[in-house]
Amino acid sequence: MTQFGQREAWIRELLAEAGQACLDDTGVPPTEIEHLYVANMASGEFEGQTGVPNALAHDLSCLPAYAQRVDQTSASGGAGIYAAWQSVASGASGMTLLVGGEKMTHRSTAETTDVIASLTHPVEYKHGVTLPSFAGLTARRYLETTDAPRESLARVAVKNHRNGVDNPHAQFRTEITVEDVLASPIVADPLRLYDFCPITDGAAALLFCPVEVAAEYADDYAVVAGIGGATDTHVVHERAEPTTMNAVVESGREAYGMAGYGPEDVDVAELHDMFTILEFLQMEGLGFAEERRAWEAVEEGRTEREGELPTNTSGGLKSKGHPLGASGVAQGYEIYKQILGEAGPRQVDADVGLACNVGGFGNCVTTTIVEAGA
Amino acid sequence: MTQFGQREAWIRELLAEAGQACLDDTGVPPTEIEHLYVANMASGEFEGQTGVPNALAHDLSCLPAYAQRVDQTSASGGAGIYAAWQSVASGASGMTLLVGGEKMTHRSTAETTDVIASLTHPVEYKHGVTLPSFAGLTARRYLETTDAPRESLARVAVKNHRNGVDNPHAQFRTEITVEDVLASPIVADPLRLYDFCPITDGAAALLFCPVEVAAEYADDYAVVAGIGGATDTHVVHERAEPTTMNAVVESGREAYGMAGYGPEDVDVAELHDMFTILEFLQMEGLGFAEERRAWEAVEEGRTEREGELPTNTSGGLKSKGHPLGASGVAQGYEIYKQILGEAGPRQVDADVGLACNVGGFGNCVTTTIVEAGA
Repeated sequence: MTQFGQREAWIRELLAEAGQACLDDTGVPPTEIEHLYVANMASGEFEGQTGVPNALAHDLSCLPAYAQRVDQTSASGGAGIYAAWQSVASGASGMTLLVGGEKMTHRSTAETTDVIASLTHPVEYKHGVTLPSFAGLTARRYLETTDAPRESLARVAVKNHRNGVDNPHAQFRTEITVEDVLASPIVADPLRLYDFCPITDGAAALLFCPVEVAAEYADDYAVVAGIGGATDTHVVHERAEPTTMNAVVESGREAYGMAGYGPEDVDVAELHDMFTILEFLQMEGLGFAEERRAWEAVEEGRTEREGELPTNTSGGLKSKGHPLGASGVAQGYEIYKQILGEAGPRQVDADVGLACNVGGFGNCVTTTIVEAGA
Repeated sequence: MTQFGQREAWIRELLAEAGQACLDDTGVPPTEIEHLYVANMASGEFEGQTGVPNALAHDLSCLPAYAQRVDQTSASGGAGIYAAWQSVASGASGMTLLVGGEKMTHRSTAETTDVIASLTHPVEYKHGVTLPSFAGLTARRYLETTDAPRESLARVAVKNHRNGVDNPHAQFRTEITVEDVLASPIVADPLRLYDFCPITDGAAALLFCPVEVAAEYADDYAVVAGIGGATDTHVVHERAEPTTMNAVVESGREAYGMAGYGPEDVDVAELHDMFTILEFLQMEGLGFAEERRAWEAVEEGRTEREGELPTNTSGGLKSKGHPLGASGVAQGYEIYKQILGEAGPRQVDADVGLACNVGGFGNCVTTTIVEAGA
């Protein structure tokens, strides 16, 4: 993955940087690439540039590789993992490169937020209910219907910032305190600025091939053990219970079913902490905590690096940054590094990892379970 | 497929109309849909609406089906066929709905053309070389390096308009003459207005499942016998010979290889006639005519409905219209109808059909070969 943060490079350059690094790292010649998937939400809206998969195939000298864009809004990276996996599992491709990326910081926050808000339903958008608003409403309901203290949400941000300090690719490598979170400006009551991920430029890449081919290139590799995706209502207010993310539950159910095991066997997780409240809801939806009890796990330190289920060891979207199309791929990259024991100072003891990538406010979700190969 | 043309409906409504028609036509309940792919180039740029796969899953009551957007610019529909096929062939989905669509006519021609031109490389775009310009330059080279008369290009448009008269979904159901083409305004010399497809709103849908499942729902169905995709240089002027479309050749080679037969076994073809010259280049790239001899086949009537390889029986993009994300899916729809003997007055004698969907100026291409099942 590239450095995440405010970058001078344009989307084409970011994608090429991550893609080239992946080819260099794996030693796979570009001419071996048969399919190329680009996970990206909005290069056309942000930069007036479309056709980036074609451009990337050209830039990486992968021609005549088949190249296509995968968009699932902020979950485009997870959808890219699913598409790349399908290309290999179907036999369509023997070697697939996935590169996810987004270039956002050159636009104003208002412009960027409005592009993202275009994924909401007009009946909600016209009332000004954007994704941060849903997060605020849902956080309030969570706090009102559980014994969770407000501080427990802040602790998600504090933990993820602490992890991010040890990630050289992270946008923010600074620790913050619960007091910092609670003193930051209100964005969508009760959530404050430090409950939200930043706007970020960056890209990340992963290479997919049949296991027997992976063994030709490397002694160590990771295997997709389970994967699944699901969708929830486009109109968020039609959901029976907003604190239950149905698409998280369903995508997890599919991924666990394919893997043949459950949440108790997962050693490390990357969850989509676009807003602090989302980390709670995914922990519950994926079975890492009982319904309405995730806050206890965070309070007790169970999701810290030293805990039983280290969560967002990369720093998460909160500290690492959230270049939309890159985020799901970067989650996969962190899990890959952890499984292979290459996570440096962030390293935890892990044989099985899980990544959950969330688009919209749980509108579309992909969950991937990865384990060590060979 | 929906009526193509200038429609009052927005992209969500067009997609839902085609998707619902497909479910009604096949008798498959929406709850059976496991994966939903939306082929669409630019709903965000054209309409400020993203996240349309999520919206469509909601509108069609397919929840919690996995939903994702496939973008390959003007070849998004063909890429959607490839994605849908991979989802079934990989075992990820037992029933996949593909809906392709685009809503364009509410924007000015200048705005629409500029969105499409955003897929070109900046080094060419900044000189004003948009897709129609490439078509003009390439047509001139073709005419200068072959014995083809200018009229042979016009005959592609005349043939496709004649076919479109018998397609109730086509945007233009009017015959035109060679004289009409040659008298129409110059767009990119030597090509004139009637050498170009129109700007169109519309959507089309196809349903994919394993063959044994198809047999449960229908006596007659079509089988994907071969499929392949490829990419050519992003910078068009870097190509050794602009009249040879490498991505057409390569995607065809893959599709024929998978099918186990060649162009001589194809009975009917839908080619991407965004510009008349493209029909020649695809005929040659796919082996339907020798290099630089496609014009002869057209002059001799071999691609007419009564000829040996009826081409663009639907009316093609020229007369049926070209709603970007819908076009590749609508090509598949026409081949499906022809193979099943349901093409009404357009019906030709066909057991095997081929669809070639082209993005950019041959930048990315998907070729699909379909044959009758059961």
